Amino acid sequence: MTTIKGIAASAGIAIARAFILEHPDFTVEHRKVTDVAGEIARLDSALEKSKAELEAIKERTLQELGEKKAEIFESHLLILADPELIGTVKGKIESDEVNAEYALNEVASQFVAMFESMKSAYLQERAADMRDVTKRILKHLLGLAFMNPAEISEETVIIAEDLTPSDTAQLNRKYVKGFATNIGGRTSHSAIMARSLEIPAVVGTKDVLSQVKNGDMVIVNGLEGEVIINPSEDVIKQYQVKQQEYDAQRAEWRKLRDEKSVSRDGHHVELAANIGTPADVTGVLENGGEAVGLYRTEFLYMGRDKLPSEDAQYNAYKTVLEKMEGKPVVVRTLDIGGDKELPYLDLPKEMNPFLGFRAIRLCLDRQDMFRTQLRALLRASVHGNLRIMFPMIATLTEFRQAKSILLEEKAKLASEGIPVSDSIQLGIMVEIPSTAVLADQFAKEVDFFSIGTNDLIQYTMAADRMNERVSYLYQPYNPAILRLVKMVIDAAHREGRWVGMCGEMAGDATAIPLLLGLGLDEFSMSATSILPARSQISKLSQAEMKDLAAKALEMSTAEEVVELVKSINA
Amino acid sequence: MTTIKGIAASAGIAIARAFILEHPDFTVEHRKVTDVAGEIARLDSALEKSKAELEAIKERTLQELGEKKAEIFESHLLILADPELIGTVKGKIESDEVNAEYALNEVASQFVAMFESMKSAYLQERAADMRDVTKRILKHLLGLAFMNPAEISEETVIIAEDLTPSDTAQLNRKYVKGFATNIGGRTSHSAIMARSLEIPAVVGTKDVLSQVKNGDMVIVNGLEGEVIINPSEDVIKQYQVKQQEYDAQRAEWRKLRDEKSVSRDGHHVELAANIGTPADVTGVLENGGEAVGLYRTEFLYMGRDKLPSEDAQYNAYKTVLEKMEGKPVVVRTLDIGGDKELPYLDLPKEMNPFLGFRAIRLCLDRQDMFRTQLRALLRASVHGNLRIMFPMIATLTEFRQAKSILLEEKAKLASEGIPVSDSIQLGIMVEIPSTAVLADQFAKEVDFFSIGTNDLIQYTMAADRMNERVSYLYQPYNPAILRLVKMVIDAAHREGRWVGMCGEMAGDATAIPLLLGLGLDEFSMSATSILPARSQISKLSQAEMKDLAAKALEMSTAEEVVELVKSINA
Repeated sequence: MTTIKGIAASAGIAIARAFILEHPDFTVEHRKVTDVAGEIARLDSALEKSKAELEAIKERTLQELGEKKAEIFESHLLILADPELIGTVKGKIESDEVNAEYALNEVASQFVAMFESMKSAYLQERAADMRDVTKRILKHLLGLAFMNPAEISEETVIIAEDLTPSDTAQLNRKYVKGFATNIGGRTSHSAIMARSLEIPAVVGTKDVLSQVKNGDMVIVNGLEGEVIINPSEDVIKQYQVKQQEYDAQRAEWRKLRDEKSVSRDGHHVELAANIGTPADVTGVLENGGEAVGLYRTEFLYMGRDKLPSEDAQYNAYKTVLEKMEGKPVVVRTLDIGGDKELPYLDLPKEMNPFLGFRAIRLCLDRQDMFRTQLRALLRASVHGNLRIMFPMIATLTEFRQAKSILLEEKAKLASEGIPVSDSIQLGIMVEIPSTAVLADQFAKEVDFFSIGTNDLIQYTMAADRMNERVSYLYQPYNPAILRLVKMVIDAAHREGRWVGMCGEMAGDATAIPLLLGLGLDEFSMSATSILPARSQISKLSQAEMKDLAAKALEMSTAEEVVELVKSINA
Repeated sequence: MTTIKGIAASAGIAIARAFILEHPDFTVEHRKVTDVAGEIARLDSALEKSKAELEAIKERTLQELGEKKAEIFESHLLILADPELIGTVKGKIESDEVNAEYALNEVASQFVAMFESMKSAYLQERAADMRDVTKRILKHLLGLAFMNPAEISEETVIIAEDLTPSDTAQLNRKYVKGFATNIGGRTSHSAIMARSLEIPAVVGTKDVLSQVKNGDMVIVNGLEGEVIINPSEDVIKQYQVKQQEYDAQRAEWRKLRDEKSVSRDGHHVELAANIGTPADVTGVLENGGEAVGLYRTEFLYMGRDKLPSEDAQYNAYKTVLEKMEGKPVVVRTLDIGGDKELPYLDLPKEMNPFLGFRAIRLCLDRQDMFRTQLRALLRASVHGNLRIMFPMIATLTEFRQAKSILLEEKAKLASEGIPVSDSIQLGIMVEIPSTAVLADQFAKEVDFFSIGTNDLIQYTMAADRMNERVSYLYQPYNPAILRLVKMVIDAAHREGRWVGMCGEMAGDATAIPLLLGLGLDEFSMSATSILPARSQISKLSQAEMKDLAAKALEMSTAEEVVELVKSINA
């Protein structure tokens, strides 16, 4: 029995025989050809077959997983039909008199290299898509026959170097119980797909592929991020129990979907979801979200070559507000800069982008862009319960400036006869230490706070959370962080305002007892965390958690706080 | 009358006619020569003349400005005698059969380019020195006759593109009343020299040289950073009054050199200095410093190709402790990383170096380096009143680790029979928000705090102080900053600890009333700020400043706080 550690990418436990999914050898030869027209015909035929396959996969994904996931294959079809790509390949076959697979491989590699050279998460994904499509065409050109994961017909756990989006989408949920890969992270395509499919998955194991043989018995533990190879009967039994417990827990969570979020002693809180696109609302409602606590509007601005129009934004905001049917929707205005770049804004390179010209700092400077977003939001406000939130506010002066721009746009719309809701709440992210420390002054002027813990922690500890060498200082449970959270909540409550939290901490099982005790009103998290959180809160007493939080505030290190929280479960 | 803005580089006011100091054309021709030996003789002659000049300047600087300033010319003499440089030039004359000035220019340019390509403040300065020396030799080779600033014999204000260290050192204080330059900043060579010479100077005006003609009447206002060209009689009179006031003030400050630092109502504080090298101690004592509040040990590690030995460090620490004759010396352990690099440590490039692997984070990882420094400090402790301070402490866990390493080294020295003082105070920099917020917990374990405002402000406001686009957020007077300072001071006093401050804020005339009111015990600043600060404090009532600070803590913006402080002077 061997145990390999990896990243828990999708929760649950799978126990089955291994199916090794290895991609064949795509090495292509470089051949001079005389029949150029014949090569072009071969390419066209391969393109046709690829197109038929992709359309079938897209259709199936659409039915099983919905529109959002099917978009990946829509973009694959667009690559297949891209005249620049295909035209260049055909041109190369003609001018260099080479075989189709060689021409395709050369041209596609150049595109991939170009995409990868640009530091953009969006273009990195385009590079991955381009590779996936190229392999599909090559498969037909080279006449490769390999196991199609769609054709698996017995219970298996898939072991692979990585799974492409098409691999993952083709998995038959009836037989594929889980998967484990060498590469990938929690936010890689395959991990996101696994969570949608509700298949347990462990990724980033580095060498699971070399350790497992076809037919080995394998346990994929997607709860703790481990793969157990050839377990003993005892271990299998033990994990079957875990599996049943997890399934039972899941069933219990499901029952809470339409319930309120109430502690054991009757204290109400609101459990909301963080979303990035209108399509995400479906998941929020399926998981019993009471609100959208953070709608990140960056995605509207990404993967484009210019700013989105006011109407395009209006439509997106309207869709979310309508789908939420009167439940609150907190929209954060543009938070770009820092690690999130928009090539068309042409921002200067910065020495410390996390301490740089981003979010509200940028919006107060580029007011045309900011005003367009605010107009779109104001126009959409009549379609639901809109709350507007400014990110990265460090001083009251900034908030006052942003608010006055909003009021100007509101007045303009009124003079144009365009209806705007009169009950829009206006709040700020608390993610900069100065704003937490001065929360009492802010509370006199804002309608609500949402604590952005990801940034608040990194600034308070002066440690870049993406930098591995200092990631030990990213400490959500450090008493200093808890004290800042308390300052914000107490200051807000004194002025009759509410406080939410929209960082990862809000959905964290160790943090929830403390946050409940500190009096947090709204917890905004990824949709799939809502039901477990509701279940956890229903078992806690808020009065007891108040005492727990008071003790934590007087501790000296994060380690002590974690021990304290563990003690309530012991 | 025209007024040009620049950077106030050296305080005071100068009123005199302009003397334009323009460097001649150093363009060199490229000539083939047949008499190679003749060219080498020409070069040797130019080297001899340059050497004689430099020795004269060095001697004069030594007498007028002391050893430290004369070191620049010592290094110029070393460049003149550098066999690698001179040998290469002679080799080029011989092998390429070219004229001496061309060979010199080519070789020196390569050295300069090499120095500049390495990102090191030390090597940047070597490049400037190399340029200065090259010009001096070229002057003799080209037979250029130009006005030597040493020969000025009537009262003048010098106007120049920039002043080289040799230009500045040769200025005759009797006649040269001040200077203004196009380029440079507060820390450029010429600015530092001007402050030593006590000549008013404005640098970085961008275009003073094109706006002033020889003989124009000019006022150099080194107090406010402006140059007034062709002022009216009225304006001249007005500035003569300012000049007299400043001179009177200066005389008053001098009288406070051996006085204590006491407020009008009898509250004592300590005014200390920040230093970088043992040579800086002279300035501390001349300016009446009561302690060294921050000895930055980075300079010991810079401009070298390997770590300094324990003995080299011991000697530096011993020198400072001895020169301070029992007055306290706070030595900060190595604060490298971030914007300060050491090429030989080979640290990885970071996305956000200010939030990265630096200072104590690095020292806890590279313990051999840290232990060497601690041993040197412990050994030196018997020569004076040593206090050791760790930088960038974010958690108590880090402080405990660093302290235990110190205790281990102390025990080792004891077992080796090496004497160590038993009264070394051990403190930390408070420059990370988490540490300020948790100061009560830290106060139970440390002997003192020193608030490092430069970093504390940039982390608290999440704004890189070096980034122009967000520098408006570098707000020392923001009430959030004042509240953090108060938290630290109150927490320390409850446990009977003292609190210092060693950021720029400690010497700032607007901040001093607030800091006095908040109860700060020690103010550490640049040596030349000590006497003005002592004078300012002697006129303030601490009881009144307490009320002022209490008001400031309840304000909502930095702008309001500045208005409040102004009101006490009105």
